[in-house]
Amino acid sequence: MNRMLDGLRVVEGAAFVAAPLCGMTLAQQGADVIRFDPLGGGLDARRWPITAEGRSLYWAGLNKGKRSIAVDTHTPQGRQLVVDLITAPGEGSGIFLTNFPATGWLGYEALSARRPDLIMMSLSGNSDGTTAVDYTLNCAVGLPFVTGPEHGGHPVNPMNHVLPAWDAITGVTAAMGILAAERARRLTGRGDHVQLPLADVAFAMMGNLGYIAEVQVNDVERRSYGNYLYGSYGCEFETADGRYLYLVALTHRQWDALREVTGLGEKFDALEPLMDVELDREGDRFTAREAITALLHPWFRKRTLAEVEQAFRGTHVCWGPYQTFHQMMQDDWRCSTANPMFSMVEQPGIGSYLVPGSPLGFSGSPRRPAVRAPQLGEHTDQVLHDVLGLSDGEIGGLRDRHVVGGPIDVS
Amino acid sequence: MNRMLDGLRVVEGAAFVAAPLCGMTLAQQGADVIRFDPLGGGLDARRWPITAEGRSLYWAGLNKGKRSIAVDTHTPQGRQLVVDLITAPGEGSGIFLTNFPATGWLGYEALSARRPDLIMMSLSGNSDGTTAVDYTLNCAVGLPFVTGPEHGGHPVNPMNHVLPAWDAITGVTAAMGILAAERARRLTGRGDHVQLPLADVAFAMMGNLGYIAEVQVNDVERRSYGNYLYGSYGCEFETADGRYLYLVALTHRQWDALREVTGLGEKFDALEPLMDVELDREGDRFTAREAITALLHPWFRKRTLAEVEQAFRGTHVCWGPYQTFHQMMQDDWRCSTANPMFSMVEQPGIGSYLVPGSPLGFSGSPRRPAVRAPQLGEHTDQVLHDVLGLSDGEIGGLRDRHVVGGPIDVS
Repeated sequence: MNRMLDGLRVVEGAAFVAAPLCGMTLAQQGADVIRFDPLGGGLDARRWPITAEGRSLYWAGLNKGKRSIAVDTHTPQGRQLVVDLITAPGEGSGIFLTNFPATGWLGYEALSARRPDLIMMSLSGNSDGTTAVDYTLNCAVGLPFVTGPEHGGHPVNPMNHVLPAWDAITGVTAAMGILAAERARRLTGRGDHVQLPLADVAFAMMGNLGYIAEVQVNDVERRSYGNYLYGSYGCEFETADGRYLYLVALTHRQWDALREVTGLGEKFDALEPLMDVELDREGDRFTAREAITALLHPWFRKRTLAEVEQAFRGTHVCWGPYQTFHQMMQDDWRCSTANPMFSMVEQPGIGSYLVPGSPLGFSGSPRRPAVRAPQLGEHTDQVLHDVLGLSDGEIGGLRDRHVVGGPIDVS
Repeated sequence: MNRMLDGLRVVEGAAFVAAPLCGMTLAQQGADVIRFDPLGGGLDARRWPITAEGRSLYWAGLNKGKRSIAVDTHTPQGRQLVVDLITAPGEGSGIFLTNFPATGWLGYEALSARRPDLIMMSLSGNSDGTTAVDYTLNCAVGLPFVTGPEHGGHPVNPMNHVLPAWDAITGVTAAMGILAAERARRLTGRGDHVQLPLADVAFAMMGNLGYIAEVQVNDVERRSYGNYLYGSYGCEFETADGRYLYLVALTHRQWDALREVTGLGEKFDALEPLMDVELDREGDRFTAREAITALLHPWFRKRTLAEVEQAFRGTHVCWGPYQTFHQMMQDDWRCSTANPMFSMVEQPGIGSYLVPGSPLGFSGSPRRPAVRAPQLGEHTDQVLHDVLGLSDGEIGGLRDRHVVGGPIDVS
């Protein structure tokens, strides 16, 4: 947590990964992010992974630092409360983040009639309104045919990656888009309806990374290269003690360090005329990757991971061990409280565990401990009182009629 | 392109993916992003994929919409020009983006002495200054052991994903961080030295997605589930014509639609007591995934992809075909000029191909055609004249002494 976005207020009506991640990213820089959900919890309230008691580690992970209000938007009063929250006055307020198909009472037209300088960030699947999710988009962009073991040019059984990368990129892009729109509002007084289709994030990134040009300009179909790093040198190696590591030589400096530390410089020199390459060129290292690997294999096979670590420490060799999730937690200081980004946080109903704050460190706004996710409806009364100025009596009436509720233990 | 960030000026000294992507993202929303490089090109000037003539499709992809100045920073005059550019006056100026180990004359201390309200965004590998890149971080976070074919709990040969996802997330996070710092500067007058280690982006995301809690709270090691979607229902199927598709049922609505369209509702009902599950619950669909798949396989095997498309069109079934890179370009309107995000753009020395603009659409700043990448040093004279007010004679002198140059054809 930090306070860079002090004074910004975002109302979030969202579920799943991208939109909640957007809200959380803003909350972690100090924005007041108010997420509203039905009294029974949203579509993602029970998403896996869950604890033995059925509480969602997923939900706790993607809603950190937000305030939660539980409200029944099937009632006219509940709808009015949500509209009032979204359009409440205030210079940094009037920002609505959603991935719902928000139309009618929750649409931009209706909301901006109430607050003309509204900023509404609408995440969607495809720009034509049809559904697309991270998993179907990943299939569409071609990557699963070039993931997995090296094979010839013909597509074999596709292999998905596990990280919901398109969701993650989209969530952060949405946060960036909200800040761009808020900057413009400060300068011009005008709000904005920002549209961000997940599909466009994915296809744009494929263009940014050169995949589209490779088809249209070079007319080649990129094939699978297993764990080799396309266009450079990167390869996995097994060590004497059965661990795996990945070795990279992108730059001159990394390549020179590798030659020196392994003592294989002369052998690499001898490779050059054999393979018709100059190995100080990144692309040529890719061309000669298998020969390079063949020379390196014995060096790694006779060393344990600890010995490799010892040999590479303090040099410019670029490498890292493969770690299981448990090894990541046991062996890596970067994923521990030795890293100031992390804090041990008590999450009610779940327990105490390592929770990240923002990866961004601002010199002007010191890092504060990470903040847990709210329980569903934990801040219902507080939000209705602070933002909408409702009295205890009014809030009590809304509770009695089950228009609002919380805190609610979802499991 | 749009003009949301009109008036913002960023000077970029960077290479590879994350930092150039940050600058490009800001340029695509209308910021004036000036990238400086050596006269021979930066570390990434020749990165693959390249054309037959050796021109980098990669560089063209990640530097769209920027201005390029070629300057020799080994000369005192070249250094002074870069410092002058970074610290030039102007409300939206004074923003420096870099992934260099920027110290000494290019460090925050020296630069902020020249312009106290400087915003400097420093991307790094690890927060302790040691090297980490996308590929070594991906090994560290555990994902390659759960990618690829389904296997037991023991790690087998790790399998990397192909997308440089951590770079992509980091690039957009950096753009968000610059806008957060610029907002704070507008409100307080103070600049900021923002630090963003790639490693922290990766480990934070693992926390956000529940992987850390799964180890620490549940004490389980997530295993590989092949192409199954963990915690929900998602599976690949082969069609009668040998195509592959991915089918997802995250929500009630998607599951109900699948039951209805396939006519398998009664069979799914009969599964519930056999598997002790309630299939309208997302987690239970994961538990019974193999049984669900077994019932669905025959339905897909007897239909071509076109017949599947016909059956699912207009319903809430969530699915999508796997596409090769060529199929993506031939068959998918989302990756064509039918999508207003894309334009056909002529890139000098490379040719005309489909180029994406920003996936963000702002109602207040209409989309303009995508803008190509500059040639190296294409804007040297323009930048020295516009930003630093140098005369033709002064610029000529700098050129004569090889302090600056361009445009330069890199191949």
